[in-house]
Amino acid sequence: MAVALGVLLLKLLILLVAAKLAGEAAERLRQPAVLGELLAGVLLGPSVLGLITGVSFTGDAGGGEVVRFVAELGVILLLFEVGLETRLKDMARVGASSFLVALLGIVGSFAAGFGVSFLLGVAGFWSASALFHVFVGATFTATSVGITARVLSDSGRLATAEARIILGAAVLDDVGGLLILAFVTALAAGAVSAGALAFTGLVAILFLAAAVGLGLWIMPRVMDALADLRVRGAVLTGAVAFCLLLAWGAESVHLAAIVGAFAAGLVLAATRQHAALSERVRHVADLFVPFFFVYVGLQVDLRGAGAEAGRIVVAVVALLLAAVAGKLVCAWGVREKGLNRYAVGVGMVPRGEVGLIFALVGLTTMVQGAPLMQPWEYTAILLVVALTTFVTPLWLKAAMRASPEDTAQP
Amino acid sequence: MAVALGVLLLKLLILLVAAKLAGEAAERLRQPAVLGELLAGVLLGPSVLGLITGVSFTGDAGGGEVVRFVAELGVILLLFEVGLETRLKDMARVGASSFLVALLGIVGSFAAGFGVSFLLGVAGFWSASALFHVFVGATFTATSVGITARVLSDSGRLATAEARIILGAAVLDDVGGLLILAFVTALAAGAVSAGALAFTGLVAILFLAAAVGLGLWIMPRVMDALADLRVRGAVLTGAVAFCLLLAWGAESVHLAAIVGAFAAGLVLAATRQHAALSERVRHVADLFVPFFFVYVGLQVDLRGAGAEAGRIVVAVVALLLAAVAGKLVCAWGVREKGLNRYAVGVGMVPRGEVGLIFALVGLTTMVQGAPLMQPWEYTAILLVVALTTFVTPLWLKAAMRASPEDTAQP
Repeated sequence: MAVALGVLLLKLLILLVAAKLAGEAAERLRQPAVLGELLAGVLLGPSVLGLITGVSFTGDAGGGEVVRFVAELGVILLLFEVGLETRLKDMARVGASSFLVALLGIVGSFAAGFGVSFLLGVAGFWSASALFHVFVGATFTATSVGITARVLSDSGRLATAEARIILGAAVLDDVGGLLILAFVTALAAGAVSAGALAFTGLVAILFLAAAVGLGLWIMPRVMDALADLRVRGAVLTGAVAFCLLLAWGAESVHLAAIVGAFAAGLVLAATRQHAALSERVRHVADLFVPFFFVYVGLQVDLRGAGAEAGRIVVAVVALLLAAVAGKLVCAWGVREKGLNRYAVGVGMVPRGEVGLIFALVGLTTMVQGAPLMQPWEYTAILLVVALTTFVTPLWLKAAMRASPEDTAQP
Repeated sequence: MAVALGVLLLKLLILLVAAKLAGEAAERLRQPAVLGELLAGVLLGPSVLGLITGVSFTGDAGGGEVVRFVAELGVILLLFEVGLETRLKDMARVGASSFLVALLGIVGSFAAGFGVSFLLGVAGFWSASALFHVFVGATFTATSVGITARVLSDSGRLATAEARIILGAAVLDDVGGLLILAFVTALAAGAVSAGALAFTGLVAILFLAAAVGLGLWIMPRVMDALADLRVRGAVLTGAVAFCLLLAWGAESVHLAAIVGAFAAGLVLAATRQHAALSERVRHVADLFVPFFFVYVGLQVDLRGAGAEAGRIVVAVVALLLAAVAGKLVCAWGVREKGLNRYAVGVGMVPRGEVGLIFALVGLTTMVQGAPLMQPWEYTAILLVVALTTFVTPLWLKAAMRASPEDTAQP
């Protein structure tokens, strides 16, 4: 027991110190802190130093489970904090734009991913299977809002209309991604049922509606009651418990935990305790959030790419252009005039865990006895997903500085 | 991945809500909150509801590793927070008392444990092996200061001389426990080396001296530098990183992680950022500390005790009296006049993880082909260790209310 605890403490210590040093270095170079954290992860990870190993989204050894959980808790707390600083009314006001942004982003990135994969297939460069192209397209549909939320929060832009459009679109995007995942999984199994799909989507939407609706009705009273309790830290604990509840609920209906955490924050933003809560959650988040972004960097594993390096580079460049361009078209979904559409488009570019899950399903799907996806194809897709995350912080910061008028078109 | 995260979130949610509800109920009944948390753990654990299983200090399954780590992090943060509220100078002033209290407590509880085990052995009730009696005595030597620290902190008594004597004695006790563990392990293996023992003890003491000495010299400058950084939350993160560093260091020299965390708090109490840090660490601790005490309650597993219930009850009653009386004599070690010696004695009663490690070594030690300790004997010892924790909160609260003059003798 003692030894395992020591190893864990050391791993977390290394990750925390590396994150903050790299974050500070990035800020001194006028770059977003989160870019430093991502690069610190790559540096510590298997491709370079190999200091932190046995840590991945899918497998683990030597405390990997704990490190993964601390990272997941970090991004859950980040979205909870962002939710706490967002007003539901303001989000509803830009709801139409959020919906269009999500829809255009999903359609655009699916079409771009499918199209480029198809062209690569026709050229004999990689698989020519239509199902394979569907998987590639699907992988590129799901926006991972963690990094965008972090950049918006760090640069004090959470209160802008652009931020609200992005956050709303990210939630809707997750519902869309869920439906697409259910669809392609059924497609791979050869039995698509429209009824089952509709049911899955309905459950997710009902969960979100019930969580927010009931939450807005019940939680102001619960928080008032907690404020009267004698036990220490009841308000903060109650708030975090509500966050865990909705995060678990979201996972249970196959949404991302962070969507539940964001909804919990939104609900609690409407309580009397909102200001004090915001500050306390921020302190806890300051500690845990960096783990997530270092962790994302740790996932980058280039060790296996050597033998296929040439092919991988070509595929990554082609697919990255498709993934980015496919999402940027969502900027046209912004209805309000005078907003920085370009920044909205860039904010929707990063893909993350959901995309990785698609790719993993593709890797493990067998079609007529052969795997749908080759390992090197999988590696290329993982790299594209990672790169969409890495390009976002710098680009989004630049996009936000651009004036809305000059850059209304993506 | 998604499922595992959901299960973890649900487990932590249940533990957190149960802890706070039980803590609040205890406070309404004018009992310490921590007693409610312990009982909530027993209720959720394998003996009663069995809601949370696969969670133990030694083994795990289904997220057990994560729950255990969160609990350990809780007690580490608790002692860090207590350290932050303690001044090294004030501790040094009662250093002689701390030393005598630790020494008398170790000698008294070893003698009482050995003696009662010997009498039970002579009566043919259980093992008559001298080595077995040594293990029982050794198990009772190591004070686990977590619960006492929590009661002192919750009742606002951390600034008293009694609290400082207890905290100092607990640190010295841990060094003593380390030496005794090394001694009995060597004894069981049949090869005691005085040189190796002295070396082990020296390393631990040098670590503590170096950590505090170097820390007091370096950390004020480090914290000032961190306060000037641009990256978010640098001061809190730096402080927690220092805490993790010393906790890991303490584990590495075979001390308890909480001793390192306490030392880190002591060092940072002398920095300029001390007040802001204290408040922020308290918010984080509010969230994590309850997990530890629910977790301690979860360890109580009475399922295997049924067949030997009669024998176990007799042994537990006899040993519990020995364990308590053996520690209470440490009250005579308090040199200062006018202090509440009784409360110091009660504060040193709880045993914990270190005792459990002794018992585990005993259970797995083979002497001439037979196990040194039978499973039912092990269960009895575990129960005694648990009960010393359970009796402390109420008793300590009562002892602190007693006036020093009436109760100078234990």
